[in-house]
Amino acid sequence: MGYPDTFEGFCVDGPKTWNKFQKKELKPKPFEDNDIDVQIECCGVCGSDVHTVTGGWGDFEGPLCVGHEVVGKAVNVGKQVKSIKKGDRVGVGAQVWACLKCDQCKERNENYCPHMVDTYNANYPDGSQAHGGWANYIRAHEYFVFKIPEALPSEIAAPLLCAGITTYSPLVRAGVGPGKTVGVCGIGGLGHLALQFSKALGADTYALTHSAHKTADAKKLGAKDVIDTTKEKWAEPYAFKFDFILNCSDMTSIFDLKTYMSTLKVGGQFHMVGLPDKPLPEVKAFDFVSNAAKLTGSHLGNHQEMEAMLQLAAEKGIKPMVETIQISEKGCKEAVERVKDNDVHYRFTLTGFDKAFGAN
Amino acid sequence: MGYPDTFEGFCVDGPKTWNKFQKKELKPKPFEDNDIDVQIECCGVCGSDVHTVTGGWGDFEGPLCVGHEVVGKAVNVGKQVKSIKKGDRVGVGAQVWACLKCDQCKERNENYCPHMVDTYNANYPDGSQAHGGWANYIRAHEYFVFKIPEALPSEIAAPLLCAGITTYSPLVRAGVGPGKTVGVCGIGGLGHLALQFSKALGADTYALTHSAHKTADAKKLGAKDVIDTTKEKWAEPYAFKFDFILNCSDMTSIFDLKTYMSTLKVGGQFHMVGLPDKPLPEVKAFDFVSNAAKLTGSHLGNHQEMEAMLQLAAEKGIKPMVETIQISEKGCKEAVERVKDNDVHYRFTLTGFDKAFGAN
Repeated sequence: MGYPDTFEGFCVDGPKTWNKFQKKELKPKPFEDNDIDVQIECCGVCGSDVHTVTGGWGDFEGPLCVGHEVVGKAVNVGKQVKSIKKGDRVGVGAQVWACLKCDQCKERNENYCPHMVDTYNANYPDGSQAHGGWANYIRAHEYFVFKIPEALPSEIAAPLLCAGITTYSPLVRAGVGPGKTVGVCGIGGLGHLALQFSKALGADTYALTHSAHKTADAKKLGAKDVIDTTKEKWAEPYAFKFDFILNCSDMTSIFDLKTYMSTLKVGGQFHMVGLPDKPLPEVKAFDFVSNAAKLTGSHLGNHQEMEAMLQLAAEKGIKPMVETIQISEKGCKEAVERVKDNDVHYRFTLTGFDKAFGAN
Repeated sequence: MGYPDTFEGFCVDGPKTWNKFQKKELKPKPFEDNDIDVQIECCGVCGSDVHTVTGGWGDFEGPLCVGHEVVGKAVNVGKQVKSIKKGDRVGVGAQVWACLKCDQCKERNENYCPHMVDTYNANYPDGSQAHGGWANYIRAHEYFVFKIPEALPSEIAAPLLCAGITTYSPLVRAGVGPGKTVGVCGIGGLGHLALQFSKALGADTYALTHSAHKTADAKKLGAKDVIDTTKEKWAEPYAFKFDFILNCSDMTSIFDLKTYMSTLKVGGQFHMVGLPDKPLPEVKAFDFVSNAAKLTGSHLGNHQEMEAMLQLAAEKGIKPMVETIQISEKGCKEAVERVKDNDVHYRFTLTGFDKAFGAN
């Protein structure tokens, strides 16, 4: 078998062998009139991939092919597809399907559709499995396939499709812009993009980090100042400072949440997009009372936000800092191990798919 | 000594003797030009009084006079006071002072002023103690003294000054009105007012309770339907249902928060005004992700909201269900014991102050 009946991808078998990748055959969902097949050129490496393969977000049965920051070429386009033409350079993020009929979908919250299908480790309503982008092809509904602006090189565009939308959407939904003060917590794969988006949207932007060595990077990325959260009483000068804190760290389980929340203006949000395996630290109802702080989180963004984010990135030169790794059994292993060890500044993109899978 | 140099109130000595009240002399703050002295006619009994005297919200040293739902007559009015005249029937809630200069105060968030003075168990910047309303007099800054609309009898108005504003303010700040769906969780001293305010503001209002025997009351108070949260899978039919849940229960420490949050629309709030002594149950960042739920809380409301709330109550006939108790050592003991035992439907007002303290 082979394309279009089967795809090939680098897979793990289960959480116990999370860093052992093998090239395996994958059966895609049946091709329908709104579907697009993308021949993959490159794919980002996301913290989610590591949480998933290690079983941190729950057990799974392999073979599992992760990867949800896909850029490639539309090679087959369903009869009903209007938005994309064969040959377009396109991207696919962390969602490949939603019902587009429920209240959430109708309100442009398809990223919260209860029937949504994640890009991998998920099943379609008909039982077909969704397979990720560390593969030669991916199949997705056109609503989740996006044209990549010309100004964005593929390996730069890839991380935007998950890390970009994940940080952009909550900023715009919170009304971040001129006159607002934003804190970005955790300067990593997500945070280094959040700083750039927050700055580009016009907000006074601060980085909050326990890694003081990231100060220079944070300033270069748009931070007006950098707050060292390892210092005792670090929060005191920042009481009632921030309209919005975007917490991009996935170490929230060891945060003193009350202290972070104390730096919010009345009604401000501490908004989590990093999702640690472990529960949040203990909080009391009282911790919300001195400033009506809101503790919240979000999942990706909607179609319109994805398009606007890619456009903004192209116009303002917002770029993830990317190190490329040749996709292969060894390359995938290196990628997940180094993300797990936090040895990444600040994002990997797997490239060289033609070499790994052969040019079709 | 006596008024105006000293007041008299029913006090407890410490958390160990939380239900032993004795009439004691109290030294008020020095009278200033913006202050008003109120001769007290009646005072509500709030859950806060019980959390405080039992030490649940922290230790304290007596003598402590609680009570922050005060109605009485303005008997002395400072030179600068413009809003109130001597002889007016007025109310004082759970806050008696704020700096009125900081950013929070300037933004009409004086209820979050970092310098604010609670009505009792608190000190003014000059070190004077604030004393509560289970007393013959109370002294407060005019900004925290409110004219009581004629339509509201004093013993009915009293609980509005804390329980009323505490439930009204978060509803209006969340934009509750026609087209919105609101859940009120916990049908007690706070919740039975929240149901009435939510209904009066025009929202579709549901009661969520683990006390099915309160169903008839909840419907009478404005609930369109009552959801029994002791039933297995109670939340499933209500996924994505509520724009706003006002959690008036102070048993949140034993709630399955994730389940409650699952009933919110995308970006909806689970808003806590009940403040349990114990921490919230364990939550994960993941629990916020399926609908971008916001977990939050608030503290009272601002001056303008207090006036609007009293007006709305007068116009729409919103009334706490009140049982009156004669203020005395025995009456105060009965009040705190019965609130602690949840033996109240739904609010007590201590009355007969003239009998306890003598008419002046």
